[in-house]
Amino acid sequence: MSTTIKKIGVMTSGGDSPGMNPAIRSVVRTCAYHNIECVGIYRGYQGLIEGDFKYLDARSVNNIINKGGTILKSARSQEFRTKEGRQKAYDNAVKEGIDALVVIGGDGSFTGAMIFSDEFGVSVMGIPGTIDNDIHGTDSTLGYDTALNTVVEAIDKIRDTASSHNRLFFVEVMGRDVGHIALNAGVGAGAEEILIPEENLGKDRLIESLRRSRQSGKSSSIVVVAEGDKTGSNVFDLKNYVEENLPEYEVRVSVLGHMQRGGSPSCWDRVLASRMGVKAVESLMEGKTNYMVGIKENKMSLCPIDKAVKGKTEIDMELLRVSDIMTT
Amino acid sequence: MSTTIKKIGVMTSGGDSPGMNPAIRSVVRTCAYHNIECVGIYRGYQGLIEGDFKYLDARSVNNIINKGGTILKSARSQEFRTKEGRQKAYDNAVKEGIDALVVIGGDGSFTGAMIFSDEFGVSVMGIPGTIDNDIHGTDSTLGYDTALNTVVEAIDKIRDTASSHNRLFFVEVMGRDVGHIALNAGVGAGAEEILIPEENLGKDRLIESLRRSRQSGKSSSIVVVAEGDKTGSNVFDLKNYVEENLPEYEVRVSVLGHMQRGGSPSCWDRVLASRMGVKAVESLMEGKTNYMVGIKENKMSLCPIDKAVKGKTEIDMELLRVSDIMTT
Amino acid sequence: MSTTIKKIGVMTSGGDSPGMNPAIRSVVRTCAYHNIECVGIYRGYQGLIEGDFKYLDARSVNNIINKGGTILKSARSQEFRTKEGRQKAYDNAVKEGIDALVVIGGDGSFTGAMIFSDEFGVSVMGIPGTIDNDIHGTDSTLGYDTALNTVVEAIDKIRDTASSHNRLFFVEVMGRDVGHIALNAGVGAGAEEILIPEENLGKDRLIESLRRSRQSGKSSSIVVVAEGDKTGSNVFDLKNYVEENLPEYEVRVSVLGHMQRGGSPSCWDRVLASRMGVKAVESLMEGKTNYMVGIKENKMSLCPIDKAVKGKTEIDMELLRVSDIMTT
Amino acid sequence: MSTTIKKIGVMTSGGDSPGMNPAIRSVVRTCAYHNIECVGIYRGYQGLIEGDFKYLDARSVNNIINKGGTILKSARSQEFRTKEGRQKAYDNAVKEGIDALVVIGGDGSFTGAMIFSDEFGVSVMGIPGTIDNDIHGTDSTLGYDTALNTVVEAIDKIRDTASSHNRLFFVEVMGRDVGHIALNAGVGAGAEEILIPEENLGKDRLIESLRRSRQSGKSSSIVVVAEGDKTGSNVFDLKNYVEENLPEYEVRVSVLGHMQRGGSPSCWDRVLASRMGVKAVESLMEGKTNYMVGIKENKMSLCPIDKAVKGKTEIDMELLRVSDIMTT
Repeated sequence: MSTTIKKIGVMTSGGDSPGMNPAIRSVVRTCAYHNIECVGIYRGYQGLIEGDFKYLDARSVNNIINKGGTILKSARSQEFRTKEGRQKAYDNAVKEGIDALVVIGGDGSFTGAMIFSDEFGVSVMGIPGTIDNDIHGTDSTLGYDTALNTVVEAIDKIRDTASSHNRLFFVEVMGRDVGHIALNAGVGAGAEEILIPEENLGKDRLIESLRRSRQSGKSSSIVVVAEGDKTGSNVFDLKNYVEENLPEYEVRVSVLGHMQRGGSPSCWDRVLASRMGVKAVESLMEGKTNYMVGIKENKMSLCPIDKAVKGKTEIDMELLRVSDIMTT
Repeated sequence: MSTTIKKIGVMTSGGDSPGMNPAIRSVVRTCAYHNIECVGIYRGYQGLIEGDFKYLDARSVNNIINKGGTILKSARSQEFRTKEGRQKAYDNAVKEGIDALVVIGGDGSFTGAMIFSDEFGVSVMGIPGTIDNDIHGTDSTLGYDTALNTVVEAIDKIRDTASSHNRLFFVEVMGRDVGHIALNAGVGAGAEEILIPEENLGKDRLIESLRRSRQSGKSSSIVVVAEGDKTGSNVFDLKNYVEENLPEYEVRVSVLGHMQRGGSPSCWDRVLASRMGVKAVESLMEGKTNYMVGIKENKMSLCPIDKAVKGKTEIDMELLRVSDIMTT
Repeated sequence: MSTTIKKIGVMTSGGDSPGMNPAIRSVVRTCAYHNIECVGIYRGYQGLIEGDFKYLDARSVNNIINKGGTILKSARSQEFRTKEGRQKAYDNAVKEGIDALVVIGGDGSFTGAMIFSDEFGVSVMGIPGTIDNDIHGTDSTLGYDTALNTVVEAIDKIRDTASSHNRLFFVEVMGRDVGHIALNAGVGAGAEEILIPEENLGKDRLIESLRRSRQSGKSSSIVVVAEGDKTGSNVFDLKNYVEENLPEYEVRVSVLGHMQRGGSPSCWDRVLASRMGVKAVESLMEGKTNYMVGIKENKMSLCPIDKAVKGKTEIDMELLRVSDIMTT
Repeated sequence: MSTTIKKIGVMTSGGDSPGMNPAIRSVVRTCAYHNIECVGIYRGYQGLIEGDFKYLDARSVNNIINKGGTILKSARSQEFRTKEGRQKAYDNAVKEGIDALVVIGGDGSFTGAMIFSDEFGVSVMGIPGTIDNDIHGTDSTLGYDTALNTVVEAIDKIRDTASSHNRLFFVEVMGRDVGHIALNAGVGAGAEEILIPEENLGKDRLIESLRRSRQSGKSSSIVVVAEGDKTGSNVFDLKNYVEENLPEYEVRVSVLGHMQRGGSPSCWDRVLASRMGVKAVESLMEGKTNYMVGIKENKMSLCPIDKAVKGKTEIDMELLRVSDIMTT
């Protein structure tokens, strides 16, 4: 494919996140601004395989900047994992005249983009859209800030009732492999304990810590538990263990679940999405390919897509320490 | 006790609900308006037993109208269930010079008030504060409207992601014995299926209904499940059953839990609380006792407290039918 | 037109309000449930005159229950005020095969419906959609509850900063002719003073009341002013008058404006809209015409549309008194 | 004063902002963690002059992390601008045994801190708390992120009704000297035009741009106007000018006012406040003085306080360009 881009395809892929719609809007309008045609591809790679396309002009993305989810829908495609599937996808892209792809998604989606680009030479540009903030090459992924606010608002409501009774609350939040949401939302919500996959506190130290917290005069406690935490086998197992060992506590459980993936994007996520969409399209226009757009030190940047897919798992040690101090 | 009220004690008792703080504020300010002293009793009946009192003037309830929870805290008191406990409570009330009690709570709290009044002749007035709306003698309990909005906002976020994927979501909401929250919030959130304690749909009819819903062209579905529903043993059991019988669906679960009891009260709950507080104090001033304040047909009313405690369990058949039609 | 309804047209007319979309959804799905065709008419009566129609099936109203505004758009039509305009509208209705109209709007819209029905014998059914709650024949109009919550949430934010400083805030809210929003949201937000069109407090009594409020120990005050209040010529005029006469106060003004007409509808407004849509369609099916659907004492009811259009202006004296007591 | 800190005074000063309470909490708990006494100073410098102090232990800041405003209240002090006032303040600090001050506020507050430190050798550390984000030495000030979300949510509601009618909305937001809120919230809300103090678009170019926007097929437009914008003399003047020159538009005005300073802080502001409080106290413990804590490139940093006070007024040219492209 030539580097004079005439038609860009845009898709959302993998788990959706708030910020995908403003990113789509930005890609579409940046294309319009530069007189590039823009084609929406439905349901991620599966839609590319099936040729499920729709032409998108500047007006077609009116009034979506504040909507959660993705107007292009998302899906995981088994077929795209096969050579045959990708061949079909490529044939459709050629038939449609698509010069380059903007893929909004997480590391699984970028891996797909990378393989597709390697096999067929299609220009690809990634935009990091996931609430987990587990992507190298960007300080913030689209949807992460919104998800943090969603979790914090839910825990604020729980705190109202917690501070009216002597109770212990476990709140399970997303994060199978990484604890970014749990740690940041836990600090933001003033949680007494934060359990993350990266650290196994151990059940006994949890009990000890809760006992100490109560002795310090706290009449209620909130424990934020990332899905992937290994202190217990799951949050209900933890509840049972605590109730056996700290019978003075009544324990209550909330499993926030997929509400964390939805909601109207925060201002930060909308502005970031708008900036990333411009950067993605204009980078393709400059002939760049196989990058992911990121934000580093408040500036737009590019990261080779093979670096981005490796995931970001280091814990923020400073914030862990802040969390410890805050639960004094 | 005489009917010339000089000092009123106010407490919140049982599970807390948004609206308790505006009700406390209203009782306190109505007392101030009529030059009656007002004493806050902490932690419900337990605080009465322990003499945990605080004098409350009009300024002491500044800036609480918008706060969830209860500044007086709440508790369940085992000791108040004993004659000895109630005797201590009465002795404290006499010592403090409390002429009458305003009890903000649910039917358990009202039963306590009734027994206490019967035994010791203390004037009592109830204000219905519970998110469950399961009290006779009032169309609406304090906190119910707020809880409905909390549930609907959570499901709205889930819907964002549901409509981006082909998925089925189970959302567990409060309601051990009554399905008012599930039914109203389910209709408000546009749920495809609503499972309530009053009706046992049966697992097979659930499966059938979900299958039909998908065939009608819906790509995603949200099922609201009241805690007390008996279709499955719990929401995770239902998830497993559906995944076995409808393998085309990925099922996700949210357990909203105690966030439903918190949050800033809605305008409706604040206005209702303000009206009920005035009515409660002024009814005591008129020499009335053993009533619960309620709202019937948009007017303040009184209901004998022994009627209020019996719970309200009838299903709203019109709304069930509306729900059926909406899921066409 | 015959009373065997085969095709219903639905429109939104006049100022929009949250709850219009769930009402459209309910009309559409109730039609689908009863195998009646449903036609959406864009931009109210103007769309009827221009034949701007779209067939709506049950799936076309997916995922709109939580959206503010109206997918059918709204407009005020000068042309419909002429006989010629209404003739064109009728001709279009006949050509399209529309048997009956559901008009979602306020009293201006109902007046139009009434005249149209009188002239051409078209069956019409009104659904009260306006944030002002100024319609006879219903205790609550669609959007009113949502608007109250919007105003209260805005004032809560202002209160945060008010209670951090010694300041006086004027907040202008909607209500040109009626003070329902100002009075209810004022009580809900704990305003120190509420200025409504129905009462002219007088500038001097306002000054006196603010002076007394400060002397009682309040360090900040919030005054809610309905647009149509006549105490000053407008909210900025009031600000100037107070600053001249109470120089110890810094006065700040917020004009909430049209944010009060938007936002995701509250659970109450969604459930009410769902019930009203069912009632409207089924009443037409029963051969009824020239009614407005209302809610009276928590039950669906019908009100002759000529009664509904007269507006509801009486002040709620009980609530005025509650407001007085709360500002003790 | 010695660098072995034994007692720290903490105050909030100037205009309040969401994030001040979590910052107070963090300072208090970090002191408790390091066995340093912490004294809350009410109403900023005025409270220092008057000796209005309160000892704060770890439990005294329970449940304030989610509250807007400041529990220490804020004020502007004329007296502190005099040598005599500052002498009184110093005498009180010495009498109370305060070794060092943490001042949470904006550049006016930092100027005061700098002069006070120069005159009396008191150790001071600033934490940037202002919604305006106009401080050098930090990428983000406390409250800025929350204010952006508040503005964007308000405009989202206006957009609901805007997209239902053919209307033009002017929304006035805070920013007397700097346009950061207007520019970022304007992009986040998808505004068609953003008027900021740094650029004078000119009334004629505004008219031209609005005309072009309508011709491009947009049926409604939202214009965000910073308080300090000089295109018109104020937002009502702009409304009149537009209505005269573009009679096809109905113009509506919202003046958001002080709701922008309130509200529960966002997760970002809470985490940032928690980090900054730790950094401020521990920097004082290390013997540092006359710095402001900041966040640069996602890391805690220190900026000499005399640099911080100069204000940050440069426009973000990249974001201006993004805004242009988005309104294609």
